[in-house]
Order: sequence, then structure tokens, then C-alpha cells
Amino acid sequence: MSAAARPLLLTMGDAAGIGPELLVRAAQAGLTDGVVAVADPAVLRRAAALCTTPGGLPPRLAQIDHPSELAQVPPGCLAVCGPAGLPDGLATLPWGRVDARAGAAAARCVQAAVGWALQGDAAGLVTAPLHKEALAAAGVPYPGHTEMLQALATPPGGAMPPVRMMLANDELRVVLVTIHLALRRAIEAVTFDAVLQTLRITQQAARTWPLPVPGRPRIAVAGLNPHAGEGGLFGDEEQTIIAPAIAAARAEGLDVHGPFPPDTVFMRARHAPGHPGDFDVVVAMTHDHGLIPVKYLGVEHGVNVTLGLPLVRTSPDHGTAFDIAGQGVADVRSLAAALRMARQLVGAGQPAA
Amino acid sequence: MSAAARPLLLTMGDAAGIGPELLVRAAQAGLTDGVVAVADPAVLRRAAALCTTPGGLPPRLAQIDHPSELAQVPPGCLAVCGPAGLPDGLATLPWGRVDARAGAAAARCVQAAVGWALQGDAAGLVTAPLHKEALAAAGVPYPGHTEMLQALATPPGGAMPPVRMMLANDELRVVLVTIHLALRRAIEAVTFDAVLQTLRITQQAARTWPLPVPGRPRIAVAGLNPHAGEGGLFGDEEQTIIAPAIAAARAEGLDVHGPFPPDTVFMRARHAPGHPGDFDVVVAMTHDHGLIPVKYLGVEHGVNVTLGLPLVRTSPDHGTAFDIAGQGVADVRSLAAALRMARQLVGAGQPAA
Repeated sequence: MSAAARPLLLTMGDAAGIGPELLVRAAQAGLTDGVVAVADPAVLRRAAALCTTPGGLPPRLAQIDHPSELAQVPPGCLAVCGPAGLPDGLATLPWGRVDARAGAAAARCVQAAVGWALQGDAAGLVTAPLHKEALAAAGVPYPGHTEMLQALATPPGGAMPPVRMMLANDELRVVLVTIHLALRRAIEAVTFDAVLQTLRITQQAARTWPLPVPGRPRIAVAGLNPHAGEGGLFGDEEQTIIAPAIAAARAEGLDVHGPFPPDTVFMRARHAPGHPGDFDVVVAMTHDHGLIPVKYLGVEHGVNVTLGLPLVRTSPDHGTAFDIAGQGVADVRSLAAALRMARQLVGAGQPAA
Repeated sequence: MSAAARPLLLTMGDAAGIGPELLVRAAQAGLTDGVVAVADPAVLRRAAALCTTPGGLPPRLAQIDHPSELAQVPPGCLAVCGPAGLPDGLATLPWGRVDARAGAAAARCVQAAVGWALQGDAAGLVTAPLHKEALAAAGVPYPGHTEMLQALATPPGGAMPPVRMMLANDELRVVLVTIHLALRRAIEAVTFDAVLQTLRITQQAARTWPLPVPGRPRIAVAGLNPHAGEGGLFGDEEQTIIAPAIAAARAEGLDVHGPFPPDTVFMRARHAPGHPGDFDVVVAMTHDHGLIPVKYLGVEHGVNVTLGLPLVRTSPDHGTAFDIAGQGVADVRSLAAALRMARQLVGAGQPAA
């Protein structure tokens, strides 16, 4: 199958969270063409009931046994593929509570989806939110999606692939060198190797992106210090670490620029009507240097993308929202953006690199 | 004179930079009602010639000896007040070169303007950019505007007033706890005293701002670490330093909230059509946490404001631009924003606090 013809797999996440109702909402909004939900069918039926207006017809679900059967699903139906081995009783779990069965089911759906994607039966993954405590309660040995995906993508006897988090919206793509570390520890984690690896992962991932020059992203690197150190006056990490890593990446043929002052590089990279960005992606040293600009215009547009895996994976930029799960009020916009971004990043409609 | 009736003083900055032509451009754009240029008249005449279209009439200048004479200036004329003691020959200096005479003149204009403002003859200052090397060449003992203003505002025998930098545009006001320090040194400079002092300076400065509740700014404080430390998991400065400083400020009656995750607080505070911000001003711990969001939508809208002085002072968010000085192509938008912001901050048209 060509990349464009293969389905995207959309995992249901935690059955007690807003994931299942978001899947149904996305189908109702007409966003699931070419998408197979990897989910417990009963859980989706419960969510469909939740999303049915009084007197209206429930959204239509079509159960299939393998993603390759998507072509047999009638238009307007959400294709649902329930992996073998899901726990019983998921559709009767109370909303908004940590439950080991929900954790086990969420993990099982991700595991099955990764298996299909790695076999070439899917173009990529979009993952609805899971709950870290439910995963732990189920004895799943990974704290979250990213670690699970890394482990599942590790070839037998091979090394775990290094990954990086990208947050993206229609204006900006930002890849982070460091993420969930205290700022003073993040500074220590900004090393030559970490920066160079981030640049290589970004280049590799961008092969399928829609870019002005396909396969050749214009990468900007934000510095760590104010004014990118102002020639060493406000810190020397730009001179001793970041610039050498950029030079090494350029020697490998990458189109990398910087380090630039953090306070203006995102503005320069911003793609907006009448404002074509100077760069296709920005590499940021810290969590907040990178995420402040992506989130500034609204979190509902942000999509989380894991780079470095042998498959495309996007997710909405929010959690299970246990406080509102089961009320049918969850906002589908971030999942919609994640589906749209996944379609872009798998290169559907793009010439092969 | 009431605050609304007193003029704003607009200093010319470095005579070899883009300051003089920006003053003329602002007058041509009709932005200098109620404004007195504190400048060498010959320098402004040279700039006016530069900004005159072929066959057109040059912008009209009206020389006065004291800001209080503004009322006698005909409409459509830019009032120019040349302080005593300016060096000779300023209007024949080459454009775009560091010159001690330009440095001395820029300092003299600021000094005179501060004197008038402190005597109550002006509502506030808008400063065109000066050049730090020219100041140094003139033997001026201050590296830039901020330090000069602090010194000029120090009462005889009194202590220098602590100041903070605010960067603002129509959507966002951000006050910085630390500015031009290496990031690892900035973390050390985030102390209880520094945060509390920033909150007090912000409250004091906001007395004249146009706010939903006059005199009572809703202040949000951004944390230092990702997720504001996630309960101590990613750093403890929020728990040991920032939250206690917020508590102390609240005990003094300030309407302060946080610490919030840096990546979402600016989005929450953003004032845009259909998006009323949750807060009136955000206090940020580091230069780039604060300036990335203010600059994201374009530097031409950003205004630099010095808080903590006994006078309002704004400036455009750019330098002398020696590379384009004298060509008549300088962009007046940031100075226009600085004039607009100064009018807002002096409380013109607002009820007295």
C-alpha cells in the first residue's frame, strides 16, 4: 500500500477519560476518513450514546478485524478495530476514575497499533490521552506513551531509538532538546551530543513533511541565554556547545542556522497569512522557550508529535480530563489538529522523498 | 497642570542614528499632539529635509524654550525644545558613526527631559534610541538609558530607585525579574526579595494604567521551571521562593496569582479580540520567558517601559540602526507604539486614582 492509501490508526486512550468521546466527536465532524479507531467497540458504543442528541441517531460504528479492511467500511461509518486481549467490562467503568483495566486496555491498543504500523499496515498513529496512574495500576512498565512507543519500536536486540518531542500548530513547529527537567538541570542537559542528536532526529523526521524544499527543512536553533549570549557576555553555552553542534550538523549537510536570540527566532519562524516564516522548524533548548510561543495563540491548536520513532505519531496536547469525562463536552479541536498534522507528516499527497 | 494637559517629552537619542528621523516621521504621521521633542533643532531640521518628498514642503518645526510653551505652538508643527549646553556641529555629523558629541547630546537631552518631568512640567518621557559606545566616548558614566534615568531620579543623598523592565504591546504586558544575565546566573538571581520587589514595583507603576479596576492590576506570576515545577518534581524554586513572595505580596493587599506554568500563563493573559485576558500583567522570571510571547506577533509593536522611576518612561524596542540611519527608511511603528503606550500609562483620560 502507498503511504497515502494506508490508514491512520487512532487509539482510544483511557476508557474512563475523554478519549472515547473525542473519537466519536471526530467521526461526527467528518474528520475520520482514512482513519481506523483502535479501541474497544463497546467503549465506543457507550461514547457514541453520549454524543447522540436527544431524538437523533447515534453515530455509526463499523467493526473490523484488521486495518486493511477499512476499504470495506461504508462512508460515514467510524471503522473500529478491537485488538485481541482487551479486558472485559470496560464499557461499564465509572467515568473519571483511575482503573487498572482502563490502563491495560489503553496500553493494549497502543501495542496493537504500533504492531500494525511497523508491519506497514498503517501510515501512522494518533493517540488519545491515557492516564499514567492507570497504566501503573495495570503494571505497564512505562510511564507514558513516549516511553511505551520507544520500547515497542526497539528492534529485537537493538538499541532504543532516541526521541524528541515536537509541538506544532499551523504557524510553528518546535522541537525540544530538553523537556521535563528543572531549569537548572535542563541547562546541564544541553550538551553537544543532545543538540546534534536533536538536529539529526529533526532532519530524519522531516523527510515526509510538506516543505518548500521537500526533504530539506530549514532548521533554526534558538540559543539558551538572553540575546544568544551576546558574544559570551551573558553565558557561553552558545559558543561552547550550541554553535559547534550546529557546525557539525551543517558538515553533515543539514540546513541549520543559529544560534539565534530566543526572543526573536520564533517570531521569525512564524508562518501566518502575509508572514511567510524564515524557517520550517525551530529547535529550542528548554521546555518553556519552545512551548511558550506554540501555545501563545491557544492550546486548542497545539499538537504533540514524537520524533525519532520509525512511525509518525501525533497526539492532542491535553490529558484525560477526568473532571469532564463522560459529559460529552470535551473539545475535539486539539484531536482534530492532531489528525490533520498526522496526515501532513506522513506525507499524504506529497512526492516520495 | 493636570497629567492629561502636561506634554510628553520625546528625546532625540543619538544624532547619528535613526532617532531624529523617527521624531520627524512621528510628527508627519500626526502622532505628536501634546508632545515636545527634546532635541537639537538643527539636527531635526536635517532630519526633516531627509523626510521631505521631492517637490514637497518639509515638516514644520517650532522652536520653544520650555515645555510649558507647547500651547503656543500652532497645530501641525512639531514643538522642539533644545536644552542649553548641546555641543556644536551635531547636524553635520556623519550618519551611522559613533561620535562623542552625539553621545553627549543624547545624554544632555535625557537629563533635561528628566529635570522637566521631575519638576512636574511633563507627564512622561519617550526616549529614542541612543548608542552605548557614543555615550562611553562622551565620558557619560552610565551604560544606557535605564541606568542614567535611575541616577537622575535619585534624590540628593537618597537611594537609587530599583527599576524593572516591562515589555508591552496591545495584547500583553510583561515585567521581568531578571534581564541581561546568563540563564544559569538568572536562576540564582531569582530570590524572594527580587520577586517581591518586582511585584511591588509593578503595583506602584500600575496606579495610572487603564485597567478594569483602576489602581488594582491583576498580576500573574510565571514560574521558573516546566509546569511551574509540577509540585517539586521539576525544581523547587516555585515552592521555596516564588510562592512565598506571592504570599507576602498578597499579605500587602496585592492582587497576585500563581506561580503558573510558564508555557500557558501568557496565553491566558493575552488580550485579543474575543479573548479578554485573565490578567493585566505577567511577571516573568527570565528575559526570554517574558520576551518570547511579547515579540511573537512582531517586534514592531513592542514597547519597552521602565518601571520603578518617579516618571513614566517608554521607548521603542530597537536601537540606533546605524546601518540605515540617514536614509529616511526607518520604521516608525515601534516609536508610535511607545508614544501610544506612554499616553496610556500616564493615565491621560483616566479618572485619577
